Amino acid sequence: MRGGENGAVKLVVALGGNALEDKALPPTAQSQRLVVGRTAERLARLSAAGYELAIVHGNGPQVGRILLASETAAAVTPPMPFDVCGAMSQGYIGYHIQQGLRRALHALGRDIPVVTVVTQVAVDRDDPAFRRPTKPIGPFYSKEEADALSAEKGYVMREDAGRGWRRVVPSPRPRRIVEIGTLRTLWSTTITVACGGGGVPVVEEEDGSLTGVDAVIDKDLAAMELAVEMHADVLMILTEVEAVSLHFGTPEQRPLARATPAELEEYARQGHFPPGSMLPKVQAAADFVRSAPGRRAVITSLDRCLDALEGRCGTWVSAP
Amino acid sequence: MRGGENGAVKLVVALGGNALEDKALPPTAQSQRLVVGRTAERLARLSAAGYELAIVHGNGPQVGRILLASETAAAVTPPMPFDVCGAMSQGYIGYHIQQGLRRALHALGRDIPVVTVVTQVAVDRDDPAFRRPTKPIGPFYSKEEADALSAEKGYVMREDAGRGWRRVVPSPRPRRIVEIGTLRTLWSTTITVACGGGGVPVVEEEDGSLTGVDAVIDKDLAAMELAVEMHADVLMILTEVEAVSLHFGTPEQRPLARATPAELEEYARQGHFPPGSMLPKVQAAADFVRSAPGRRAVITSLDRCLDALEGRCGTWVSAP
Repeated sequence: MRGGENGAVKLVVALGGNALEDKALPPTAQSQRLVVGRTAERLARLSAAGYELAIVHGNGPQVGRILLASETAAAVTPPMPFDVCGAMSQGYIGYHIQQGLRRALHALGRDIPVVTVVTQVAVDRDDPAFRRPTKPIGPFYSKEEADALSAEKGYVMREDAGRGWRRVVPSPRPRRIVEIGTLRTLWSTTITVACGGGGVPVVEEEDGSLTGVDAVIDKDLAAMELAVEMHADVLMILTEVEAVSLHFGTPEQRPLARATPAELEEYARQGHFPPGSMLPKVQAAADFVRSAPGRRAVITSLDRCLDALEGRCGTWVSAP
Repeated sequence: MRGGENGAVKLVVALGGNALEDKALPPTAQSQRLVVGRTAERLARLSAAGYELAIVHGNGPQVGRILLASETAAAVTPPMPFDVCGAMSQGYIGYHIQQGLRRALHALGRDIPVVTVVTQVAVDRDDPAFRRPTKPIGPFYSKEEADALSAEKGYVMREDAGRGWRRVVPSPRPRRIVEIGTLRTLWSTTITVACGGGGVPVVEEEDGSLTGVDAVIDKDLAAMELAVEMHADVLMILTEVEAVSLHFGTPEQRPLARATPAELEEYARQGHFPPGSMLPKVQAAADFVRSAPGRRAVITSLDRCLDALEGRCGTWVSAP
């Protein structure tokens, strides 16, 4: 496919959890490097095919473990708040992606810098999400511990499917990527890892300064916002399945090869997409396509990302 | 003072530990933000005075606590290796500096982006430092724990001044900043936080890929390497004292207003500078000045950094 100004297609790629960790392996740095290495091989092929990339990744399990370690060690060292843990996870995952991608690019004879930019994403202080926290983070607690945390720190705690109590935080909508100028400057010469974990959510104070908030921005929506602000040609959302399906998990299941934003929203209303899983991905895809004429989005698997760009698979979303 | 191409003086600023934490306060994120906020006010004044900045910071206490939390929680989540903890600390400290500096710049009516680039610094695999680890990291252990860690993980453990046993790692010399191209691209439009904690030390493999190593690069030497590779005009090393002194801590103590690299080295040979404290700073300053004609270095306190640039204090190092 063909792209914008210099002919190269500009892609923002959102990586799913399976791109960073294999649930069958213990979550050590070593096993993560292996998984990230395999992911990097696939992404390097996109670069070799001439696409210009920016990469957004999730951080759920990783920031959960940082938080768990931080709270487990609370008696010996002060626990860090959630925004700081998020910034830590950007450093850690970005570093792994930098190393993996450099190796994979070298193997293909390519010498493109890969850098991680610690990214803050501004959200609205009056986003309705702040009134109803939904996103579970960190470790599980007993009812007693949960009550104590609630009383002491004001955390909102919720019972999680019989496995114990967890803190829940809001998941506000991304409004503005604070470091966007830098990301635009680097775009054509560099593969940039940005908005890791959806970005560190911040609110803007009256004096223009920023304050971190305990919240989680959906990483697919953050990738959408990045793609919009970067004027990308394609938002590519990578997950475990090759395409979005209707009637998923039933005998009538069928993959969706293409759809318009309006069609996706109609399917969403009909309940085809589970919230917290496929729903934010189709929302992100639809929002990106609607943001300007000519923009397209594709949802597919990491393994088939190049095939999808060449039109052989995936769910493509474009204007009617 | 006057600078290079566009007239602006390009500064690489190395921040000491006192720029990030106040030892009198508990090391919570909240107290750190206060200290970083004060540091940022001083740095913002340099920017307002027309200097172009890149910022290097230490990470000793912060990465020590990340490692401590990680090891304390080893029974519930796999501990992260030291290189990953270093990358985490870059995200965490960089994020705090971004927020603090943005606020301070806004207060001065300036709107310059501040970004953190996760930085790897290449070291030589055959650096002699790898044969004699010297840099203590992480928590203290009993003799028995130390022996066990030594046997299990091959750590080099050393008794630390009667306070217990600690792991020691090598402190190799920085050879090349992996992300230098990006840092150069951003230099004139952006205040970049780079090489945090001296950078994540990596060695280059035969296939050109990079592997993290358990080591600590001195942050003043990393700042020197960054200043050399960025073609900076001035390397500014900020610490707790206004100037380097001879006969420090004795009745004959006297501040040094200016020196050549050769003079500094002669003083070093005479034992005027404690290793691990002022010695790496004067080495970094001397190395930078020697790297090209016209380059200058200054060692002074954070509080008086602007005064020093205006020639009113500090120890200035320049060619004879």
